[in-house]
Amino acid sequence: MKLSQIGEFGFIERFSKNFANIPTANSKGIGDDCAILPLDDKNEQVVTTDLLIEDIHFLRKAISPFDLGYKSLAVNLSDIAAMGAQPTSSFLSIAIPADMDVEYLDELMKGYHELSNKYNVPLLGGDTTRSPDKLVINVCVMGKTAKGKSRMRSMAQPDDIICVTGPLGDSAAGLKLILENIAVEGKSRDLLNWHNKPEPAINEGLWLNKQEGIKAMMDLSDGVASDLKHIMKQSQVGATIQLEDVPMSEALIYASEKYNWEPEALALAGGEDYRLMVTIDKTKSEKIITEYNKHFPYRLSPIGRITQAKNGEIEWIKKDRPFELTKEGFNHFGH
Amino acid sequence: MKLSQIGEFGFIERFSKNFANIPTANSKGIGDDCAILPLDDKNEQVVTTDLLIEDIHFLRKAISPFDLGYKSLAVNLSDIAAMGAQPTSSFLSIAIPADMDVEYLDELMKGYHELSNKYNVPLLGGDTTRSPDKLVINVCVMGKTAKGKSRMRSMAQPDDIICVTGPLGDSAAGLKLILENIAVEGKSRDLLNWHNKPEPAINEGLWLNKQEGIKAMMDLSDGVASDLKHIMKQSQVGATIQLEDVPMSEALIYASEKYNWEPEALALAGGEDYRLMVTIDKTKSEKIITEYNKHFPYRLSPIGRITQAKNGEIEWIKKDRPFELTKEGFNHFGH
Repeated sequence: MKLSQIGEFGFIERFSKNFANIPTANSKGIGDDCAILPLDDKNEQVVTTDLLIEDIHFLRKAISPFDLGYKSLAVNLSDIAAMGAQPTSSFLSIAIPADMDVEYLDELMKGYHELSNKYNVPLLGGDTTRSPDKLVINVCVMGKTAKGKSRMRSMAQPDDIICVTGPLGDSAAGLKLILENIAVEGKSRDLLNWHNKPEPAINEGLWLNKQEGIKAMMDLSDGVASDLKHIMKQSQVGATIQLEDVPMSEALIYASEKYNWEPEALALAGGEDYRLMVTIDKTKSEKIITEYNKHFPYRLSPIGRITQAKNGEIEWIKKDRPFELTKEGFNHFGH
Repeated sequence: MKLSQIGEFGFIERFSKNFANIPTANSKGIGDDCAILPLDDKNEQVVTTDLLIEDIHFLRKAISPFDLGYKSLAVNLSDIAAMGAQPTSSFLSIAIPADMDVEYLDELMKGYHELSNKYNVPLLGGDTTRSPDKLVINVCVMGKTAKGKSRMRSMAQPDDIICVTGPLGDSAAGLKLILENIAVEGKSRDLLNWHNKPEPAINEGLWLNKQEGIKAMMDLSDGVASDLKHIMKQSQVGATIQLEDVPMSEALIYASEKYNWEPEALALAGGEDYRLMVTIDKTKSEKIITEYNKHFPYRLSPIGRITQAKNGEIEWIKKDRPFELTKEGFNHFGH
């Protein structure tokens, strides 16, 4: 049997039961954005790791080395943000093709440094090695929160309002520009820029985690259509999304009209937005949204609510009528 | 300029000074086997990460998937052992070629589990993704020691006795069997086995760290000729090694005679032994060695001593006469 037949989640399920016999020493969060480990009397530690492989996660010709360094750390910091945690350190493993220019690596490390510096995350270690061909980057980031305050995917409750911290779909549209070899011009540049240099919502996650009424939180790496199911599964709830409430950028609308794309498909089933998705107690959501919008450049947008439905499917509503998403995780809507 | 011109250490030096502006929050150990981070009132945390790439660190046809899974964790646990620490958790990132059989991965995870289980190290997270061609494995391991008790490379002092926790060179000899396509038979099997499935010296490191008089400690991943220089640089000391005291296995002697290898070159300049090298106060070393040898299957062997020499070169002595090691880190001795 080939891996492609069972997928990555199938593989994880196969081995994880075998590890159940090893005591986890009060750790939790396996299957969440981060693992949660005991730290000291007042704090807990969160840990995440992400592997980026050339020609799978990036094309060397389509991203500058500076942006690639930035993004390698950003996708990990986004997982820390999703826990409502403060990042505290990073570890970088890199496998380098022998013919690579040192100047390329200098730029890559400058991009990594810019983001490290922005959020005060020291680089404390790692591994440097040769690669036979592809550039390979693995980053591991640690962070901390007050004890018991990590925001988990299991914390959503029926009637919570589902919000996102910014417009969705820009990154997926940026990827389409790359894959379809479209010459980037005008507003489309923003799409490519967000794809290549996403900003982790560290400050947003920290702020949200301080508000009373915040429940589940996660970062949008695969798209709402796929990511929301993790919250539904782990919280044992359902969810309904109002399509007309999904925030989309001017750049996405502009490019979608120009290239005949479906913007809603990109916004809901495209990946790598790295915005946060958060569920909020319905009695607190209005006040939190108002306050949030005074602090941050992108609005906190309510896009739906958590329900008691148990069928495992997201209910998509457009203008009060059900809307069908036929191929989950991909950009094709039914009629 | 190509990376091959400045090497991995040259690359690390280039970027690390740029990161000096980011506060490290009482962390230390950069350039040691592990980074050392604050944990709680009584303990500190140690962290290490290692990247293994197909065709650089292993050949898929020369190692069983079970051994590869075991070794991926073992090389990281060895770094934890070198700090005298207890491993507490691991994180596994793996990039998998699409055509890989699930059964191969099952075996790999069984090997990883066997070692996890042996030292009670839970697997708390990671990342699974596709790879365009090569199998890529990154492991990050955390451990802990009592506060201030991590054994660093900077802790050696003149007159310390340098000891190693087992015979050296087996792994390098095992690698030669693979690279020279030698049909493995008889005692040579032990060499291949230690190369493919090295045992991290966790219990040895923990035991040594409890003894009064233990100073610097590190694991032998590149060979004494290369690794000892890290202790010399960070402790600002010199070192002299007695070649006839270097422990070598029967299997290494057997294979070296049979294939006309220089066993001392393999023992001192071959890598991946994953034995510990430790420096011990000379007034305490005899007692510690005697006690150690009651507890562990491989003898703790004194192979030389720390000196005040400041020229950065290891002094090699054979039968009271200087001996020259011409190409450091490689298996060629001068006359």
